Amino acid sequence: MTVQTESAPAPVTVSAPSLGQGLLAALDGPYHSERQRVRREVKASDVVRDPTQSIPQARDWTLERLVNLAHKGFGRAGAPADLGGMGTLAHSVVHFEMLCAGDLSLAIKSGVQHGLYGGAIWNLGTSWHHDTFLGPALRVETPGCFGMTEFGHGSDVSNLETTITYDDRSDEYVVHSPTPTAAKTYIGNAAEHARIAVVFGQLIVGPRLHGIHAALVPVRDEAGQALPGVTIGDNGHKGGLLGVDNGTLAFDRVRIPRRMLLDKYGGVDDSGVYRSPIENPNRRFFTMLGTLVRGRVCIGGGSMIALRKGLTIATKYAEHRRQFPAPGHPDGVVLLDYLAHQRKLLPAIATAYAYGFAQNRLTGLLAEAGGQEGADERAQRKLETFAAGMKAMSTRYANDQLQVCREACGGAGYMTENGLTTLRQDADVFATFEGDNTVLLQLVAKQLLSDYRESWVGLDPVKLVQASAKMIGGNVIERTAARPVIDRLVATAQRQSMDESVLHRGWHVWMLEDRERHVVSRLAQRLQRAMKASGRESFATFNRAQDHMLYAARVHMERVILESFIAGIEECIDPDTRRVLNLLCDLYALSVLETDRGWFLERNRMSSARSKAITQTINRLCGDLRPLASDLVTGLGIPEEWLGSAMLHAEGAGPTPEG
Amino acid sequence: MTVQTESAPAPVTVSAPSLGQGLLAALDGPYHSERQRVRREVKASDVVRDPTQSIPQARDWTLERLVNLAHKGFGRAGAPADLGGMGTLAHSVVHFEMLCAGDLSLAIKSGVQHGLYGGAIWNLGTSWHHDTFLGPALRVETPGCFGMTEFGHGSDVSNLETTITYDDRSDEYVVHSPTPTAAKTYIGNAAEHARIAVVFGQLIVGPRLHGIHAALVPVRDEAGQALPGVTIGDNGHKGGLLGVDNGTLAFDRVRIPRRMLLDKYGGVDDSGVYRSPIENPNRRFFTMLGTLVRGRVCIGGGSMIALRKGLTIATKYAEHRRQFPAPGHPDGVVLLDYLAHQRKLLPAIATAYAYGFAQNRLTGLLAEAGGQEGADERAQRKLETFAAGMKAMSTRYANDQLQVCREACGGAGYMTENGLTTLRQDADVFATFEGDNTVLLQLVAKQLLSDYRESWVGLDPVKLVQASAKMIGGNVIERTAARPVIDRLVATAQRQSMDESVLHRGWHVWMLEDRERHVVSRLAQRLQRAMKASGRESFATFNRAQDHMLYAARVHMERVILESFIAGIEECIDPDTRRVLNLLCDLYALSVLETDRGWFLERNRMSSARSKAITQTINRLCGDLRPLASDLVTGLGIPEEWLGSAMLHAEGAGPTPEG
Repeated sequence: MTVQTESAPAPVTVSAPSLGQGLLAALDGPYHSERQRVRREVKASDVVRDPTQSIPQARDWTLERLVNLAHKGFGRAGAPADLGGMGTLAHSVVHFEMLCAGDLSLAIKSGVQHGLYGGAIWNLGTSWHHDTFLGPALRVETPGCFGMTEFGHGSDVSNLETTITYDDRSDEYVVHSPTPTAAKTYIGNAAEHARIAVVFGQLIVGPRLHGIHAALVPVRDEAGQALPGVTIGDNGHKGGLLGVDNGTLAFDRVRIPRRMLLDKYGGVDDSGVYRSPIENPNRRFFTMLGTLVRGRVCIGGGSMIALRKGLTIATKYAEHRRQFPAPGHPDGVVLLDYLAHQRKLLPAIATAYAYGFAQNRLTGLLAEAGGQEGADERAQRKLETFAAGMKAMSTRYANDQLQVCREACGGAGYMTENGLTTLRQDADVFATFEGDNTVLLQLVAKQLLSDYRESWVGLDPVKLVQASAKMIGGNVIERTAARPVIDRLVATAQRQSMDESVLHRGWHVWMLEDRERHVVSRLAQRLQRAMKASGRESFATFNRAQDHMLYAARVHMERVILESFIAGIEECIDPDTRRVLNLLCDLYALSVLETDRGWFLERNRMSSARSKAITQTINRLCGDLRPLASDLVTGLGIPEEWLGSAMLHAEGAGPTPEG
Repeated sequence: MTVQTESAPAPVTVSAPSLGQGLLAALDGPYHSERQRVRREVKASDVVRDPTQSIPQARDWTLERLVNLAHKGFGRAGAPADLGGMGTLAHSVVHFEMLCAGDLSLAIKSGVQHGLYGGAIWNLGTSWHHDTFLGPALRVETPGCFGMTEFGHGSDVSNLETTITYDDRSDEYVVHSPTPTAAKTYIGNAAEHARIAVVFGQLIVGPRLHGIHAALVPVRDEAGQALPGVTIGDNGHKGGLLGVDNGTLAFDRVRIPRRMLLDKYGGVDDSGVYRSPIENPNRRFFTMLGTLVRGRVCIGGGSMIALRKGLTIATKYAEHRRQFPAPGHPDGVVLLDYLAHQRKLLPAIATAYAYGFAQNRLTGLLAEAGGQEGADERAQRKLETFAAGMKAMSTRYANDQLQVCREACGGAGYMTENGLTTLRQDADVFATFEGDNTVLLQLVAKQLLSDYRESWVGLDPVKLVQASAKMIGGNVIERTAARPVIDRLVATAQRQSMDESVLHRGWHVWMLEDRERHVVSRLAQRLQRAMKASGRESFATFNRAQDHMLYAARVHMERVILESFIAGIEECIDPDTRRVLNLLCDLYALSVLETDRGWFLERNRMSSARSKAITQTINRLCGDLRPLASDLVTGLGIPEEWLGSAMLHAEGAGPTPEG
């Protein structure tokens, strides 16, 4: 049984009726028709929440809309049709992203139900689990939750304290929280709605520990009361996502039948013996976690959709709102005509495009890996690294820029009815859940180091010396997208003088590749020393390089995202659209270079003149793109009716008078 | 009648019982004893709000606590004792800041009532207004509000649409909102509680416009009902500050007796003629606005107190929370031992100290200027510039770093009961109200340009050439604090080689002075061209330099803040405290240099080696300060009982189980 396979994404062939529509089709990428279908079939009333709701109202609304969407067939993609699935794995990401354009609570509630709860059943369970639990999960007949995080253990999943102990006398597992810090917490859906929890814990069979496994544990009866031995708490008020009922779960020796263990990667067989298709416990652990990668793909993508919505609201406001009169502008200058305002919004729009193309590529990789049973390990590792990096970069950027959007709308931006503060508050925790950003960037850096080492392994000493000498032009960097185009761009740039324009795309790529190569190889050298040390000193050496590690991950991701943008432009054939995408790509690339110009100057990778020219060119590009602002936000793809921003409709009108 | 005069702030003489207490006394500065009095006399139950309250609960709580505090004598500083005042002008800022350590809604409600409403009566009114309205305002018997912002006009106060028209037949003023965009909005206290509004509008007497004036307009009767002609709306749900009832006010030809105009700076006299002590309408406008400077001083200071609270919570959490095990750390590494975590919190703590010393200085300047009737114009202008700059810098920094604090506490940081999200949400709008940050930075830049021009005016051509030639060492920069010390530091730095340590304080100052000098003089040159152009072209030239203007303001403020830190250290005599303050000052200065190293490298102000050394030294300083973290946050001065963070008390314990 496999999920519906992907149809190979066809290159986008647009005869764009307008620039905005052309940009929309390009940025939607291979998923344009599915996104358009969602835009058509899902109404604003299905997905846009009144942000002033109380917590009980918000929770009720969110569950109700989740059920409603499931009836319409949304949220059910990525599972086989005979079990109630509708749509491909890639569509499941696309649907999540589209929900984020409506309401983030609804998207997260859907992500918990379908992605985490349903996904765990699908990915960690076997046919009995699929047949028994997947349909009711997809139809939201059985609300479920995903009990991984504990009070004492957030990022460090391998050291969870919850135990799942096999009792051979009764042929059951006993699920138990041995300490207060073992209680599950922040569990979405747990506080009110979940009937069944996927509970992660240490599997114990007889005298042996087999590491982290997951079991399906019923937590509430039909009437919604906690079952015996299960203590459920409510995390209560949060910084946002008020429609999601996060809660705590503690287990007091709760017994479940043996078959409730999600045992695809290991469990006790009929003869009472632990068996696993993966011998190495460490590999088993990472394989199990790896199957959950879709969550990260969704969170990163969703955060950027939230930002696109914020940018759309702020840009539309800035196109009409006037401020101080100035010579030649007696009625006041339109906000978006100020350079400072352009600087706030336009590079962020360019970055939203860049991340959008990268996210499409990531979704494609996920679909490829997920479509085939036992995808090769290297591809899976690449996918996980890309997902971790995109999640960390996207959520960081979205959080920062949503705040900029709020401030760009002044006092109006602070009014809940105008839609920005709720976006900001809801997206906040995206930086933390599905992997804390700092931890994820370290994961990316570790993979970079491992790739780096791999590229040296097997070289004999003579070759090693030769390779070291040519390292700058060497093979440490692997171009990830649109390889022939990028090879050609870089080759052209290398033939040109450094005094050329800062607008040469090959130069942009070269600069980011060169930086990555340098940063990663230096990091590898530093950490080699750490590996030779032992005990506390090895940690200390590693720790002294921690900022270097995080930096390596970021520079890698900035390069990969640029490549995705270039690949995306290659696939667009409408010349007008392409021209504007190129301007946006310039703005993205130069913004990255400007932000980090200290590094390039420090290492003589860039002259002072060039560095100054970058800033001037960014300002000029802002001016060039400003008249296209309206089309640029059309391309971001948020349906007008979903914006939920009162100020865009009422010119000067405020809330209904009351007194 | 004048307010209570300041006793000259004595240098702090500490025989510190502990490092934390020594730091506290130093950072409290001249206001240590008053701050300590507040810490003693105000209880957590007076100022710490339950952040899960609904809007109606929050509004009720906030009004009730405001009244309670007024009874205890807080919020009443800065007004004469015979009218119910208690405390000096500086104390009014200190009290506001201390309230921000409790709850920002309460602080803002107090700021609206006492600072804006009471302050307008005091600063813009004359003796009848003082005698009639100030006492009831201070005792919160008459809740008031401050009606400046309109839907159509936020930052651009001089173009407000509301009219205040003199009717000579009835000897009254008619207050009117001629269009929907003329309605007042976001007015704190307006939605529910205010009885009287200070309304700003265009004063019209006969055929003549006299520009912006303010009048006291009763808006509600004793029963709380809107008075005839007054339409009151409710801005409803906001991004934060749920305890403050922001609302809208529209006036339909509302008549008020002539004496209700706050006429200190202009109004119609007994013979029906407009009179003002200030002839020039432009100067009159800025003088009137200038009297409101205390609001900006409070908001900047308050935002940094909010950040200090966030840093205290996040640091205390990071001192106990453990994450992954590592070699030599079998129980997991304590969060604050990770370099990346130190990097998140320690430079921010250093910056909080830096801004704290600068804020104390600003408060002192306010007290000096406010204590004397008709302070000289140059001192007033300096005060306003300093206040505008501190407000913009502080609120920006606080917003950014509160988010870092939230994320540094992971999922726990997102739970409202742990105190960080409410701080973040409440402080958000500090970037906008009391002057939008972008507008305020422009105001600072304009003053820098004007100072720059002044320093050249009156020079004959020969001297001008000489002066230009020596500009680098010239007189464009005015050292603002601890002048002899700083002169000496810079002189020493200039005698040293550039290869010296990056820890020389004189070098820090020199770098920031040199940058400011360069940025401001270049800006002046660019804008001179703009002034020669006319119409749209002059705006376009100005606009092209807008990022340069904002940058000039920021670099100026960073330098002024460093000088304040140095002056603060000079006043501290306890050697242990002084040593730690010096480490913090190094960390602040190097953080500023690191962030902007692109600029210094671009202009060959710093070698690559030095630039790299800065990063390494910051990491080392983080390690040096890490063992002192507990004392550092004691010094930030937030009473333990006011932290309102559940996670600091319950190790592994969560919310009360319910299910």
